[in-house]
Amino acid sequence: MTPDEFRSAGYELIDWIADYHERVGEHRVASDVEPGQVRAALDGPPPEGGERIADLIADLDDSIVPGLTHWQSPSFHAYFPANAALSSVLGDLVSSGLGVNGFSWVTSPAVTELETVVMDWMVELLGLPDQFVGNGVIQDSASSGTLCAVLAARDRAVDSGADPTRLVAYSSAQAHSSIEKGLRIAGIPAARLRVIGHDDAFAMQPDALAAVIAQDIVDGWVPFFVCATAGTTSSQAFDPVTAIAAVCRPHHIWVHLDAAMAGIAALCDELRWVNDGVELVDSYLTNGHKWMGVVFDCTFFWVADRAPLLRALSILPAYLRSDAADSGAIDYRDWQVPLGRRFRALKVWFLLRIDGPEPIRTMIRDHVAWSQLVDQWVRADDRFEVVAPTALNLLTFAVRSGDGPTQDLVGAINASGEALVTPTVLDEQRAIRVSVGGQYTKLGHLELLWELIQQLADDLDL
Amino acid sequence: MTPDEFRSAGYELIDWIADYHERVGEHRVASDVEPGQVRAALDGPPPEGGERIADLIADLDDSIVPGLTHWQSPSFHAYFPANAALSSVLGDLVSSGLGVNGFSWVTSPAVTELETVVMDWMVELLGLPDQFVGNGVIQDSASSGTLCAVLAARDRAVDSGADPTRLVAYSSAQAHSSIEKGLRIAGIPAARLRVIGHDDAFAMQPDALAAVIAQDIVDGWVPFFVCATAGTTSSQAFDPVTAIAAVCRPHHIWVHLDAAMAGIAALCDELRWVNDGVELVDSYLTNGHKWMGVVFDCTFFWVADRAPLLRALSILPAYLRSDAADSGAIDYRDWQVPLGRRFRALKVWFLLRIDGPEPIRTMIRDHVAWSQLVDQWVRADDRFEVVAPTALNLLTFAVRSGDGPTQDLVGAINASGEALVTPTVLDEQRAIRVSVGGQYTKLGHLELLWELIQQLADDLDL
Repeated sequence: MTPDEFRSAGYELIDWIADYHERVGEHRVASDVEPGQVRAALDGPPPEGGERIADLIADLDDSIVPGLTHWQSPSFHAYFPANAALSSVLGDLVSSGLGVNGFSWVTSPAVTELETVVMDWMVELLGLPDQFVGNGVIQDSASSGTLCAVLAARDRAVDSGADPTRLVAYSSAQAHSSIEKGLRIAGIPAARLRVIGHDDAFAMQPDALAAVIAQDIVDGWVPFFVCATAGTTSSQAFDPVTAIAAVCRPHHIWVHLDAAMAGIAALCDELRWVNDGVELVDSYLTNGHKWMGVVFDCTFFWVADRAPLLRALSILPAYLRSDAADSGAIDYRDWQVPLGRRFRALKVWFLLRIDGPEPIRTMIRDHVAWSQLVDQWVRADDRFEVVAPTALNLLTFAVRSGDGPTQDLVGAINASGEALVTPTVLDEQRAIRVSVGGQYTKLGHLELLWELIQQLADDLDL
Repeated sequence: MTPDEFRSAGYELIDWIADYHERVGEHRVASDVEPGQVRAALDGPPPEGGERIADLIADLDDSIVPGLTHWQSPSFHAYFPANAALSSVLGDLVSSGLGVNGFSWVTSPAVTELETVVMDWMVELLGLPDQFVGNGVIQDSASSGTLCAVLAARDRAVDSGADPTRLVAYSSAQAHSSIEKGLRIAGIPAARLRVIGHDDAFAMQPDALAAVIAQDIVDGWVPFFVCATAGTTSSQAFDPVTAIAAVCRPHHIWVHLDAAMAGIAALCDELRWVNDGVELVDSYLTNGHKWMGVVFDCTFFWVADRAPLLRALSILPAYLRSDAADSGAIDYRDWQVPLGRRFRALKVWFLLRIDGPEPIRTMIRDHVAWSQLVDQWVRADDRFEVVAPTALNLLTFAVRSGDGPTQDLVGAINASGEALVTPTVLDEQRAIRVSVGGQYTKLGHLELLWELIQQLADDLDL
């Protein structure tokens, strides 16, 4: 494709994306295709090229879009928000167009330095502690950030003489599956992840943590890593980070704070409590690619001390050496699992300079306020019970008559195509999980959701 | 940013990218900014938003572009090609614009199914074995693909009763640093990576491999993983995969074939030898984002049997369950380290449907033929010696008078800004490494490079 062909095809696709965003609420939220249906439509021998952009757009419209779950839909309340702000989409376009790889400072100084700039901006915008300044990196995902935290913690422990086969880690049962996955990748099986009890609000109990750690030490294990969560996946519970850090400090245990979804709420001064205790942790992450609107992938990851991270992840063969690195420039490849790196900072830079933080704050405040309204609506209907406190923008509730009806209602909501929610299980009770965080979600969409739920509850005779 | 603002800003950036590609050869290949210079230009308090796209474009022109190493430059001969074909850039734009997350089949069936379609196309286009059909996944990078291979191999070994602390792995000294990094991440320190000797062409010696494995077994170690390389980083050596697999088979050792850069040459029938032996390996990868032109990130990764990979990487909490997955749909999150997934298949789909494989084949054939010309030029100048055979599109040569002059010449080439090459070390000899793979690189650019080298050699009195 020549640059001139790129111009005309590019304009068409820019329009196509603008149209998609304008009308994303008109689609069924979840696709109703059968397994294999999209593939059957698009399969065949490998193409020989020469197709026009109109052919691809026709297939996008006819075969791809009907096979999507529309994460940008205002009625998408499943999993977590994955907002792709259009300003950020443009930043990502520039990244693709430049086609540079910033794995080292020298392979494109601007990639590294702009990343440090935007990471330091995020420290300030989120009110994070000073030790994070200069110590941030954009990871692809929270899973990868957590894995890096595990690896740094493992390195620090082994460096202090610990036997790697005796290392044990801790989280609550509410922590994200990426904790278990990260540990497993690092060679630490699930049997060495201690699951700590939680209180009625599904927050980790520091006393229980202290007791398990003490017993492990007696038994000859080496506690090395605790993952606290600020906003758990199933119910948005907030672990008491300050108390957890106090338990860990005497034992030199690495404390990682996973605030993947909720941490970004700290853009609003009055919500900075979501990160309470962050000044005491060794590593922290929150996702730009969830509520904030940076198009996936963009996890903001910080360490209080970069040395163990770099020890864990740096390797320096001859073909990667440079004078700049020898004199202290940041080589972000040593802060992550992969070698290659996109110019991800651009999508943050575009979002912050074009939109700025204020519209994001307004959106977050609206979502939090509206979530409290939905909470009241649920509580006012005695067919339902709220299962966990609505702390921020995630509701969990159940049908009082039991797990079966709750599951049936989730199925009916999602089959309607008018909204999408996720089922979860909290202390063995099935619950409906409603995430309120879409960039296009307004109060009216929540009113429609609640009407839909009530109607379906009537239909199902709950 | 509203959809209408996105339209006008989007057109401007499409034009900006087209201009950048048209004129990328006019820039210094490597930036000459000092460490901190880009940062100083763009730092300051976090922005408050409201800036116009013209402001960002001005900063791109004035501060970002001068701080880039131009990987798309026709005179970029460093590291590896990282072609960002404009057709592929458009596919990636659509991915960003849709903002869907395909971590499970159900979270966007089209993301999963189109990925399987393009991965099966690549099996056919590259002439890969039938067991890879349906068993491919797009990873972010070769490093991550190799890590996944290590994890699957580890799981298979431990599942067969191996003690994880006794596992040992093998590669040649020419294997990529990501092998050591992947093993280290998996908890297998460098001391348990056996470095196998190589022949004069820097290819692994299977007899040496067999001998080290036999001794390890005698010593109570458990050989579990061999990484063979098709096209090593330093000199593009090709390990003898068939012989290596024959050594490994009786011991049930996982054979991973890393063909990150060179494997894509198999698009050309007469170059399919690059993947000789691939039908015998357990896992294989080559990068779409290098020679082929899929914009980073896109590593094609296949396994002969998906079961150990899925056992190693799948975790299924309640909030990720689905009926579709229970009935056998692919959930690619279980084929990789992160949970989240971009719609990466689109950038491959756009490239293959718009450009098709034929222009890529022509480019590859040209680069291979031209590399042989450069090889002849080097051999004809008795100031230089070729250090390793020019198998495909990578040249390694040295100044006969020694390492110092070789290093000086690399420095002078790169300081000129007219071309960029990488230094390397082969059997303790310093060498100049010239990669010929840029999408805009023509024979004339290589002629200019050779003139530059000769002129600098004169100037340096080599």
